[in-house]
Amino acid sequence: MTKNMDTIDLLPSAPVATACQPLTIGSLLNASLTGSTRRQIVYRDQPPISYRDLQERVGRLASLLRDRGIEPGDTVAMLDWDSDRYLACYFAVPMMGAVLQTVNIRLSPSQIRYTLQQSRARVLIVHHDFLPLVEAMRDELPDVRHYVLIMEGTPGDLPNWACGSYEDLLSSSCPDFPFDGSLDENSVATTFYTTGTTGLPKGVCFTHRQLVLHSLSVAAALGADGQIDYRDVYMPLTPMFHVHAWGMPYIATMLGLTQVYPGRYEPSLIVDLYKRHGVTFSHCVPTVLRMVMDAADSQGLALDNWKILIGGSALPPDMLEAAQAAGLRVAAGYGMSETGPVVSLMRTSALSDSGHTAARSGYPVPLVTVSVVDDTMQPVPRDDRSHGELVVRSPWLTPGYVGDANASEQLWRGGWLHTQDVATLHEDGSLQIRDRIKDVIKSGGEWVCSQTLEGLICADVDVAQVAVVGIPHPQWQERPVALIVPQKGATPDLARIMRTLDVAVERGEISRYARLDRIEIVDELPLTSVGKIDKKAIRASLLERDSTNGVSNAGR
Amino acid sequence: MTKNMDTIDLLPSAPVATACQPLTIGSLLNASLTGSTRRQIVYRDQPPISYRDLQERVGRLASLLRDRGIEPGDTVAMLDWDSDRYLACYFAVPMMGAVLQTVNIRLSPSQIRYTLQQSRARVLIVHHDFLPLVEAMRDELPDVRHYVLIMEGTPGDLPNWACGSYEDLLSSSCPDFPFDGSLDENSVATTFYTTGTTGLPKGVCFTHRQLVLHSLSVAAALGADGQIDYRDVYMPLTPMFHVHAWGMPYIATMLGLTQVYPGRYEPSLIVDLYKRHGVTFSHCVPTVLRMVMDAADSQGLALDNWKILIGGSALPPDMLEAAQAAGLRVAAGYGMSETGPVVSLMRTSALSDSGHTAARSGYPVPLVTVSVVDDTMQPVPRDDRSHGELVVRSPWLTPGYVGDANASEQLWRGGWLHTQDVATLHEDGSLQIRDRIKDVIKSGGEWVCSQTLEGLICADVDVAQVAVVGIPHPQWQERPVALIVPQKGATPDLARIMRTLDVAVERGEISRYARLDRIEIVDELPLTSVGKIDKKAIRASLLERDSTNGVSNAGR
Repeated sequence: MTKNMDTIDLLPSAPVATACQPLTIGSLLNASLTGSTRRQIVYRDQPPISYRDLQERVGRLASLLRDRGIEPGDTVAMLDWDSDRYLACYFAVPMMGAVLQTVNIRLSPSQIRYTLQQSRARVLIVHHDFLPLVEAMRDELPDVRHYVLIMEGTPGDLPNWACGSYEDLLSSSCPDFPFDGSLDENSVATTFYTTGTTGLPKGVCFTHRQLVLHSLSVAAALGADGQIDYRDVYMPLTPMFHVHAWGMPYIATMLGLTQVYPGRYEPSLIVDLYKRHGVTFSHCVPTVLRMVMDAADSQGLALDNWKILIGGSALPPDMLEAAQAAGLRVAAGYGMSETGPVVSLMRTSALSDSGHTAARSGYPVPLVTVSVVDDTMQPVPRDDRSHGELVVRSPWLTPGYVGDANASEQLWRGGWLHTQDVATLHEDGSLQIRDRIKDVIKSGGEWVCSQTLEGLICADVDVAQVAVVGIPHPQWQERPVALIVPQKGATPDLARIMRTLDVAVERGEISRYARLDRIEIVDELPLTSVGKIDKKAIRASLLERDSTNGVSNAGR
Repeated sequence: MTKNMDTIDLLPSAPVATACQPLTIGSLLNASLTGSTRRQIVYRDQPPISYRDLQERVGRLASLLRDRGIEPGDTVAMLDWDSDRYLACYFAVPMMGAVLQTVNIRLSPSQIRYTLQQSRARVLIVHHDFLPLVEAMRDELPDVRHYVLIMEGTPGDLPNWACGSYEDLLSSSCPDFPFDGSLDENSVATTFYTTGTTGLPKGVCFTHRQLVLHSLSVAAALGADGQIDYRDVYMPLTPMFHVHAWGMPYIATMLGLTQVYPGRYEPSLIVDLYKRHGVTFSHCVPTVLRMVMDAADSQGLALDNWKILIGGSALPPDMLEAAQAAGLRVAAGYGMSETGPVVSLMRTSALSDSGHTAARSGYPVPLVTVSVVDDTMQPVPRDDRSHGELVVRSPWLTPGYVGDANASEQLWRGGWLHTQDVATLHEDGSLQIRDRIKDVIKSGGEWVCSQTLEGLICADVDVAQVAVVGIPHPQWQERPVALIVPQKGATPDLARIMRTLDVAVERGEISRYARLDRIEIVDELPLTSVGKIDKKAIRASLLERDSTNGVSNAGR
């Protein structure tokens, strides 16, 4: 028997209960309401509000929702661009014990409808930009009782099926809401549906406790790397619907930073807000970084004193160089929707020690345990070459997929969350994500990383784009095939590319099972809806053609 | 009904359980074991060990203790100087579900005996420097079954009542210990007895969850102020027995920093270790800072690139200046044993904005709520003058005093932890500690801070030392009286001092109830055992003399 606080000799129970303050979303506001009287929260060109104003709006929003019948456990769905309205939702909805669904606007209309049906959202808060979308599916959302419309600018009349405009309803609602101080920290606070490459979107969910712990740990890791500071001015450039913008608005609020919300992303406005408010900390995917750099470039503006955390996909080395040349201080991290999302963060201090870490995904943040394992869940050797599936444990990973017990069990098999990413854990403790498991080529009992081969092939001057996929093989299970898009006007020398790979085999950089079966030159590669190379489509078309042509892969 | 993870539709229970990783001391090691392969832990002039070595020693120590009968819930007491041995205890004892008592060696022998009796320690790990102390009380510690002796240097023979030397026993114990991964995070991890100014020492205790949350929050706050960094080399200068050296060894380990342990504090060795290992982050009370600065001064050494966090008592402004002149970067914090200890931390960024914040105790760290209240628990106005008792809430405050239900209820009355410190909460959110409640003078329904009056009086060139205390008064409840020690050879002009106070009253800096009843010149002031001015003794002797002399305080 361990000694618990409530069993220790002669301690009275009332103090014990009070000392066990629950980890609730509301507690993230505590220190800022005292210590950040001089910080502001800005939305586009609107007058800034204070943290006390935010607290008041959180109270009003909770009253508004309660007055429309929202009770603890109900779902409230939000469809808005990045705004202080969204930030108020991040707090008000979970603080009243309800669940905030941050609606994924990148999904197709029918997928969005499915997610709202599955979550059984009772109230929808909708920016008028999304009116056509919502109007088309309204009849199929029987659980939605009220639509609150964000009527920004001059959007025309309020439709008769809406219960009112957000700002009107807010200002007529009571600023004092009796939030329950003893809310169970294991209550679900938020839910979000990820794009599945196949099938229906999958809903992940996170509790109050998980979001608080994620905020604390990521803040500690960013702080210890000099990436976040009390003096920072924060602006998200990852949409707030997407795993709560990587949890950063919670962190910025917990630290009481000045915050700037850019609404719908418009590159010139983003650069404008950066200038006007002296933004110093943001986070985004590489494509948004490129967009911002281009906008600044066209204005002839240097991006000094702006720290950018990159995630979502690996940062190409040439883009890192360009960003640094533009004045940005870039770091990278790794995570996924299922992991809350942050698992690891690059250390910019390590980056300056050795340039090669640019390609890495950083070091696990506090409380995270990672392991890189083979098919039998045995850890692979910790060196610069071995790789396997990255599996994770930490106190803030999603417990599973809402409404899909089988997928949840699969996600957590063996007591670890399976990322389905292939990684190397280097001797210095940094992680390198090499491939998605489904894109790895299993050949002769070895795993061949498609991304490693692509990197070697792409180094050829005549190659513009490349995709390496595995196709079934009777003897070797799978064999790698490369599809190449040539540089404009160039004719790649395929024998030269093959020799490059042979040299890499001789040097031990890749396994001999990684030798390509063949290379094909194509005009273009198929892309997914979010602009990534669609390897599934490539595999399918290769298979279909091979079976049509009767091509055999038996020879080696 | 809120939605909990274990009730959300169709989520299987096994993943839910796995996703709810408990907040245990062991989890602080997770990320460092992966990411800090190049960091070291150093004890004095001994060869450094790695984090893997620390993990192995933690395993061996747990095996050693289990083999001596320690079970979950038992207490293990540690009597050592600051060392990697102590760090291993910080982890091994709580990780096996037992309670670590960090024995307060500043207490008197009879008080130490009392604390070991009350905690019912089963094993005592003792540095041979404390042998005489332990030998004298051994017969009165029936619960202690085993004594493990730290035989450092050439300490002579092992006494026959000891079960062995720490290093010998460690190396013969198994490095693999089956730590329970599902340990209850609300298990008590540590206990520590504070010096009471009156009566017996009081035991506070903290759970795994509390220590983890304290580590995360304080790390986030230090990081956001640039006070801690992954590249830091950490050395404690607050004894490890004292509220786990303010929790900093847990933070340093969680972040995977290089750590240097100085053993028994010897100023020249401390300066030596600073030089040799490039120490960049420490924490101490003002007197230790003075000692280190003097040692560096006598070696003609600048203390560049060394961040020092000050706590325990307010940092005198002249000392801050001297420290900055010596090259140190000094910050301050506030807390007490009961609060785990950190409540607030100064922001060095704010310090450079405005010098006056040097006298402040900083801003609350994340998850902390503070309030400054009057006798009826109503918050006092938030301005630069109002003051009241500082009360606190956060998830890491002690639930009470071990074995003293009444004192625990008092500590937590009204659902807030009462610090018994009088504070002002400034408009900018910073806290200023002004007095201990017992030293505040209650006059005419107002609270008069003795420290404010002392500051005004001390500004007089002829005053060397001053103490202001309240003595009972039939009409005004209490009235302030000042005792002054003159500068050598000087004769203070008491009328001038009275006029200074009158000016302060006219300016609204102090209340008119703060006017002194009288000033007395004395040769010296009585001191407590830890060198503070003993106001209790002053009040007692004034009262005794007044009653003997028949002095009446009726006139005003």
